[in-house]
Amino acid sequence: MNAEIIAVGTEILIGQIVNSNATYLSEQLAQQGINVYYHTAVGDNVKRLTDVLTTAKQRSDLIVLCGGLGPTPDDLTKQTVAEFVHQELVYDTQGYQRLMDYFANSKRPMTENNLLQALVFKDGEGIQNPNGLAVGIYYEDKVSHTHYLLLPGPPRELKAMFAQGVIPLLQRFNDENEQFISRVLRFYGIGESRLVTELSDLIEQQTNPTIAPYAKTNEVTLRLTVKTKDEASGNHLLDELEARIMARVGSYFYGYGDDYSLVEATVDTLKQAQVTLAAAESLTTGLFQATLGAIPGASAVFKGGFVTYSPAMKASLLQLDADWLAEVGTVSQACVEMMAQKAKQITQADYAIAFSGVAGPDSLENQPVGTVWLALATPNGTISSCQVFPHGRNEIRQAAVMYGLNMVRQAVLADHSRAK
Amino acid sequence: MNAEIIAVGTEILIGQIVNSNATYLSEQLAQQGINVYYHTAVGDNVKRLTDVLTTAKQRSDLIVLCGGLGPTPDDLTKQTVAEFVHQELVYDTQGYQRLMDYFANSKRPMTENNLLQALVFKDGEGIQNPNGLAVGIYYEDKVSHTHYLLLPGPPRELKAMFAQGVIPLLQRFNDENEQFISRVLRFYGIGESRLVTELSDLIEQQTNPTIAPYAKTNEVTLRLTVKTKDEASGNHLLDELEARIMARVGSYFYGYGDDYSLVEATVDTLKQAQVTLAAAESLTTGLFQATLGAIPGASAVFKGGFVTYSPAMKASLLQLDADWLAEVGTVSQACVEMMAQKAKQITQADYAIAFSGVAGPDSLENQPVGTVWLALATPNGTISSCQVFPHGRNEIRQAAVMYGLNMVRQAVLADHSRAK
Repeated sequence: MNAEIIAVGTEILIGQIVNSNATYLSEQLAQQGINVYYHTAVGDNVKRLTDVLTTAKQRSDLIVLCGGLGPTPDDLTKQTVAEFVHQELVYDTQGYQRLMDYFANSKRPMTENNLLQALVFKDGEGIQNPNGLAVGIYYEDKVSHTHYLLLPGPPRELKAMFAQGVIPLLQRFNDENEQFISRVLRFYGIGESRLVTELSDLIEQQTNPTIAPYAKTNEVTLRLTVKTKDEASGNHLLDELEARIMARVGSYFYGYGDDYSLVEATVDTLKQAQVTLAAAESLTTGLFQATLGAIPGASAVFKGGFVTYSPAMKASLLQLDADWLAEVGTVSQACVEMMAQKAKQITQADYAIAFSGVAGPDSLENQPVGTVWLALATPNGTISSCQVFPHGRNEIRQAAVMYGLNMVRQAVLADHSRAK
Repeated sequence: MNAEIIAVGTEILIGQIVNSNATYLSEQLAQQGINVYYHTAVGDNVKRLTDVLTTAKQRSDLIVLCGGLGPTPDDLTKQTVAEFVHQELVYDTQGYQRLMDYFANSKRPMTENNLLQALVFKDGEGIQNPNGLAVGIYYEDKVSHTHYLLLPGPPRELKAMFAQGVIPLLQRFNDENEQFISRVLRFYGIGESRLVTELSDLIEQQTNPTIAPYAKTNEVTLRLTVKTKDEASGNHLLDELEARIMARVGSYFYGYGDDYSLVEATVDTLKQAQVTLAAAESLTTGLFQATLGAIPGASAVFKGGFVTYSPAMKASLLQLDADWLAEVGTVSQACVEMMAQKAKQITQADYAIAFSGVAGPDSLENQPVGTVWLALATPNGTISSCQVFPHGRNEIRQAAVMYGLNMVRQAVLADHSRAK
């Protein structure tokens, strides 16, 4: 089945927003075994949208539209597609009721135009919107066998509707109960090209399951996808492939799933070990702690720390001797190790990490931009590491944070397994 | 002149990368007075790209293609468009020489396929690539008067080529030396809808200059654009319009330009006043300090501070009385004011800001998610504010940081102008 995606909205064409919905939908449709051959973005204009639909109908089996389902006059996707496929608009019972309930509960006045959001095609199916009021639509043209999906534009609404309402619909298109099962493996500390090299024979042999590597910022993922009529045997094939992959690159693996991140893995590791973490940051100026605090529930393991950007702050907040500091230099093993030890001692955390380095644009203490010293004070002593990250002030800071998270995760895992 | 943008690359259609080039090109073309009516993304496939070109030629005066100019076998944009417009490919002299020089200097072997990057259309013009080896192409079909622009896919290359090579080209399309001059005004603390309401008569009357409002996260910009044959009189028209705008909403204005940000304005204000800033962060866990530290040269005014996520850390790092803290609560005016004053005192900074609040997902101390207390200790006393930001853990943290930056900027500006 070949698909195309049509995003409707003038704000995309004037460069006000990025068409990230097309990216999301492409990735999701690929996971359902559906090939996407075109993306189009078109403005809120009946004539131009109709022209785009005419072209799309000639070349695609599935046309996914997003945007323009709201209550304002420039939301005209539903009306335009209805006209194009000669469908009458009728109220979706469930969507109509949700809309009525929403306005009754919120005590806000409901204007007439809001009701437009509950309209669907007479011979189509409404798709409920878990995060909004605009109902989605699925419709099959019984003559041309073209399938239409109309989805809302706000990404929060689109994603929730896709996961809950669209995926079950798409699974109807598969041959006799065939389904796709995916598993995402996440790796830190190995580049995409090396990962692909290590697994080259597995990737070349792939048929079912397939292996798709993706390079993300500072990490790589592998998506394993199996096509199967039976969930148990599908999972068994995935288990076998995963075991072969792990035997080669398992030391870089940190977790499963599309949305899991290295910081979540680190917080989970700290929680499981029931230990706490503090930090003293120089070049990252709080970015490590901000990254931790972005995870709900991080407060169970992360209590706080220091931002010691200037040498004077390192001396006063972390009680370091200013003369000694001038002698060893702030971008040094001695300095970060002392920073970590003092942070651990003052905060009484179980672990404390320290960062110092050269984020640029200028070099510092004769060390080139990108040089970063990290130290981790643990219950069993202090470990440290010097890394040189590629240029770009924020890229260096971000790379240092990721390296630090992994340093914490691995040390806690090692200490915890020893303690058992 | 009506334009459309065609991005070529299978990686866009499988959802591996976002089509951010289309967003950039749309914004840039709009600034040149060119309307973009369609975006298309298509894979590295001769047949499908040719079909897309056939449709585009029927509806657009200018077709901008990006991607597929590189040396690998899947880079086929140039060859496909050449075939489509019946143009022979010849070497661009300057591009050919740069390529030869590059491989001679880098001492890397040059394989034959690299030369493809220097090919241009026989009757077209080469556009030099300041950040890469693939030459861009401009070509006008003299029969249909369709204009073609072929640009490289990597954003670093595309943007530099657009700024240096494409803009001068596009200005030829304007009537006799007419040019567009733009000025961007940036506002914080006023929503887009209120800004538009305050300026509604100016926006309705607009012809030349035009006024285009853009809503960004937590801020709004206005782009004023004038079409003129004479730079001085164009700037005069912009000055007049700016004065009328500032008379109404000037209190929310913080700076000029596409790339300027509230944090840069805050760092600049601190630098001009020659004062220093420290911070004590609870719900933002370092995000305020990380945001400051992202600006090169921030170390001149920002020395460091505290992340005091737990009540115990507030008590120990900021020397607050634990019993008193339990009594007043951590999300309170009394607590943030004391946090700010202690942070100022311990770090000996001129100003210190403190944040405490409820980022969610759960409420805290019976206060709803989104409640944030901010305090700023200044040389002339402490000011504080309670805000309730819309839901979403990271949205609340981000909104609090922006509010805090503006609080610092305004207080320093006021103190500094008083001191003069």
